[in-house]
This record gives sequence, C-alpha cells and structure tokens, in this order.
Amino acid sequence: MSAAAPAQLVRVLEAGGPGLSRQLHRTEARLAEVAEGHGAELGRHAAGTLAAGGKRLRPVLVFLCGGEGDSALVAAAVAVELLHMATLVHDDVLDRAALRRGRPTVFAAGGRNAATATGDLLFSRAFAELASTNSAEAVSALSGASSALARGELVQRADAWSDSVTEERYLERCELKTASLFASACRLGALLGDAAPEAAAALAGFGSRIGLAFQILDDVLDVSGPSERTGKHRGTDLLDGTVTLPLIIARRRDPALAAMDLRELVSEPAQAEAVCDRIAMAGALGEARKQALHHVAAAKAALGDVRLPENRRRALDLLADGMVERYA
Amino acid sequence: MSAAAPAQLVRVLEAGGPGLSRQLHRTEARLAEVAEGHGAELGRHAAGTLAAGGKRLRPVLVFLCGGEGDSALVAAAVAVELLHMATLVHDDVLDRAALRRGRPTVFAAGGRNAATATGDLLFSRAFAELASTNSAEAVSALSGASSALARGELVQRADAWSDSVTEERYLERCELKTASLFASACRLGALLGDAAPEAAAALAGFGSRIGLAFQILDDVLDVSGPSERTGKHRGTDLLDGTVTLPLIIARRRDPALAAMDLRELVSEPAQAEAVCDRIAMAGALGEARKQALHHVAAAKAALGDVRLPENRRRALDLLADGMVERYA
Repeated sequence: MSAAAPAQLVRVLEAGGPGLSRQLHRTEARLAEVAEGHGAELGRHAAGTLAAGGKRLRPVLVFLCGGEGDSALVAAAVAVELLHMATLVHDDVLDRAALRRGRPTVFAAGGRNAATATGDLLFSRAFAELASTNSAEAVSALSGASSALARGELVQRADAWSDSVTEERYLERCELKTASLFASACRLGALLGDAAPEAAAALAGFGSRIGLAFQILDDVLDVSGPSERTGKHRGTDLLDGTVTLPLIIARRRDPALAAMDLRELVSEPAQAEAVCDRIAMAGALGEARKQALHHVAAAKAALGDVRLPENRRRALDLLADGMVERYA
Repeated sequence: MSAAAPAQLVRVLEAGGPGLSRQLHRTEARLAEVAEGHGAELGRHAAGTLAAGGKRLRPVLVFLCGGEGDSALVAAAVAVELLHMATLVHDDVLDRAALRRGRPTVFAAGGRNAATATGDLLFSRAFAELASTNSAEAVSALSGASSALARGELVQRADAWSDSVTEERYLERCELKTASLFASACRLGALLGDAAPEAAAALAGFGSRIGLAFQILDDVLDVSGPSERTGKHRGTDLLDGTVTLPLIIARRRDPALAAMDLRELVSEPAQAEAVCDRIAMAGALGEARKQALHHVAAAKAALGDVRLPENRRRALDLLADGMVERYA
C-alpha cells in the first residue's frame, strides 16, 4: 500500500489493525517475487505495474473476509490482484492508454504484443498462485470471476454507441466487469479463511454490492470530474462509446439528448465535455450517486447476519462507505 | 475430429481404438457446450473457432497418456484445447491474421478488442473446466504451461530481428511456446488417468520432445513450403522478424547471410521467399529436419520404461512419427 493511500482507505487499515498490515506486506512481497521470478521479459514489463501499487482493494477484501490467516489467504490475495492487473494491462491495450497511475503502461512501454502477452502471463500466474492453496473450489471461484470479466468486456464492446442500453443491461455489465471480482475476493477469503461455511454467500453478496457501487461511482466521476482530481479528461467513456448509468438516466430525462446519435455527437474531447455538462444538468449524477449509495447500504445489510470480529466488521463498513467517497 | 484429419492422425485414432474415439466425441460435445454457454458474445466469436476443429492433438495426448477414463480426462482435454485456442485467438490479434483454418479469425470478424476479450474468456474457461476435476495439481500443471506460453511469446518478441539468437535460445523458446503445453497435456493425462504416479515425468518428457519436433517442423515448413500444402506464404516468420532454426543454421553456414540485417533484407513477401531459397540452398532444412527426428526418437525412448497397453504405446509412437510427416 503506497503512502498516498486515500484517507478512507487509511481508516480501513487502522480498523483492520496490525494483522491486516502484515498480510498486505506479505502480499506486496509476493507480488514482487512473481514479477521477478518469471523471466527478464515479465520483469521488465510487469515489475513497474506490480510495484506501482494501486489501492489493493481486492486483497484487503480477501483478508477482511478471511481473517487472521496463513499463506492460503496471501496466495488468494495475490491471485485476485494479479488477475485484476492482467485485465488492466489488456484494457490499456484496448484503450491505447499511455499512462496508468502516472507511469507508462505496458502497452506504451513495450507495445501491443508485449502487453497482450504480459497480461496473459499475469493471468496464468494468478491461477498458479491459487493452485498452491490446494483448493479446487477456490480455483473455480477465480475462474468464474475471470470469465465474467472477459464477458463484461465483450458486452461493453457489443453495446458500444448503442441508444437502447437499459439500466438493467448496464447493471448486468457492471456485475460482470467489476462486481464479480470483488465478490470473488470476498468468497476466496471466506473459503480459505476462518469464516463459517454459510457466511461465504453473504460475504460474496457484500463484495458484489460494493463492486456495483464502485463501478457506478467510476462512471459518475467520468462525467463529473473534476479532472484535476480524477486524473483524466471528463467524458472518456463517451469518446469510447461506452454507455453508462448517468447517460442512461439523462436520456430518460432529456428527450433531446435521447434523440441524438452518440457517435455523431462525440468525436473529440471538447464535445464529450459538453455532453457531460448536459448529463449533469439533467440531474443524472445525483440520481446515479443515489443508486451507488443504495448498493453500499445493501452491502452493509448483507453483513448483518455474518459473525465477524468487531474490528473487521467496522473495516468492511468503512470500505463500503469509501466506494462513494473517492475520486480515483 | 474433422473428416479431413491427416492420414497419420487417422492411423493414431485407429490404434487408439473405440475408447479414444468416444473420448474425443465427448470432448467435441463439451467444447460446443462451452462455446454456447457463456453469453451470446462468446457464442458469436468462439463457436466457429471451437467447432472448426483442428487436429485436437493435445486432447489425443491427454487420452493416450491417461487411458480409458471418465469425465476428469475429458475435462483436462477440453481445458488444454481451450488454452490452445485462447493462445491462437491472441496470436491472431498480434499477427493481424485474417484467416485460420480457412475461416475468418475472431480478430477479422470482431476486431481487436473482441478478440482479446474472447481469448481471455477461453483462458478462464480452461481453468474453470480443470477446476471441476478437483485436482489442484492439475491446475498447477496447466497454469505452468499457460505461463510458459505467454513467456514464449514475450521471448519471441524480445528476440525479433536479432542476429544473435543461438540454437539454445531458440530451443528454450520452443520449450516455452510449444513443448510446455504438449508436456502438460501428457502430464494431465497421467495425473488424472490410470498411469502409475512415477510415469507422469516420463510421459511429460515424451510430450515435451514431440512438442519440440512439432515446432521445428513448423519452422521448416515456413521456409520450405510448398505454400499449396501449408496454406500460407513461405517466409511469414521472416516477415515477422522471428528467427527460427533454419535461419540460425543457414547463417552459420553462409557468412554472407549472417552479415545481412534481417530487417533491411526482408520487408515484403517476395524478399522473404528469396531468403527462404537461400536458407534452403545452405542445406539448413535437412539439418533442422534431422534435429526434429532426433527429438521424435528421444520421445519414443522416453516411453521405454512406462507401462502402457500395447495399443496406446503404438498410437503414441505413430503420433510422434506424425510430428515430422505433415504439412499443417
């Protein structure tokens, strides 16, 4: 976890206590080993990506759901983070992205081919790592999430520029591309940690709900900015043809917007920002944020019947709140 | 297995007997289910690829090494074939290939993004399929092979256009990008089938050796053609900057060729064909083919101490011979 961890994550870590910090340190150390241990080529391309960090949200979920734990939990945390990184590396190829977290992407540094292969390698190491737990159920959970991520990407590309994406279809895509991995992190923690067997479904439900909130807020921030805080131009989704909740809501409220063809409307950043303003004026951001808050509340409610030590419950609650109190 | 299976594969199937045919039918049926069962998007992009067949060499290896078997062997066969297909789909993105096995590639039909995501999905399903066997050791074997494939791709791109690729480095790359998956197919058969535990290493050794022979012959065919038989222009590796055994040998024998910069020499198909002729004139194809035959012999020798029913040993021998008696 980098020193620049956002404030709400610092609170989560404080609540999680020294056990959580120790687990996260072991996770970092193992991620570094993986980056160095599979050939000079992976080292060159992935060491930066792996070391650069990010919020390590998914490992935190593994540990908070799994408890004080041994190497199986660390293996699971490393596996979900490697899978997450594999998808980021591939996404950067698809988006031709030059920077991520302020560093050149693998795509920018090594080209399309190296980035595709690097993503594939990170993918493979995720499963290798998890196989070390000797739990086929865990491998099944991760491969389910990993399939969902890829399906989410396919659905997103299939729906690009569409004027008929419903809220339901949008949420289905969010389930696939975001919520499934959050859910899987929680499920892996439950499977490999000290949770009671019947708690796994509730914990996975928690993960799924905060994943939905996370994605909805991402999509709100893409419209609202401010870009100084989010680190990217407003409306990048629009430029990509990706139809998200704020646009779906705004189209319902603003018939003129609904009648416009997105592909004609948006072909450069300035136009995208103008459409963002229009979405905001329709009041769509407030409504979308309300939906995100609803999922946060549902996530906390899902924890209701789960027996958890007080500090871990508090950390999970804080983490859920953090989904909608962030800019990146 | 398609009706157009090459003659030597038909002999392998005959030797394998009705048990092998039944296992391969179950494999085809399961591959079709996977293609249909994961969303309309995968169905659209992958059904053709999966159904189009190919030689199903890797599933055949699983069954011949595993024996008469139950669903675990079919799951393993499906998993190795899905992994193989995932790499083909990604390779076609990297090579911008329009056709494979006479059909449009996923890249050509759906674009770069859909093809990258489709490959990721096939990858994920491979691990999901294998997790159904409840063998973490099997998952470990497949993830090892899958990491090797990706590393092989990275090494190949790192070595592109290089004038200092040694035979040793070339063989290392072949181990990674081809032999590892053949070895893993054999190992999975041994792990999940009726082989004695101590047979697994020998069977994996067999797979590795025929994988090396397979790749060397591929590289010979790229230089020798004839393109009517191989279905592609001669010298496609050269155009790609991929340095293979025939070129390495020819450079050793023909100092003028060694002194030339590949990148300047080859920028269009006609030039590539001229370099192919020059490689052939140096006698490099015969020597490379001899090396492939050496690996075939070593593969058969590796089977020496393994206890196997006579029909399966005979089928494996025929399959090994088939590595160097083929055009595709």
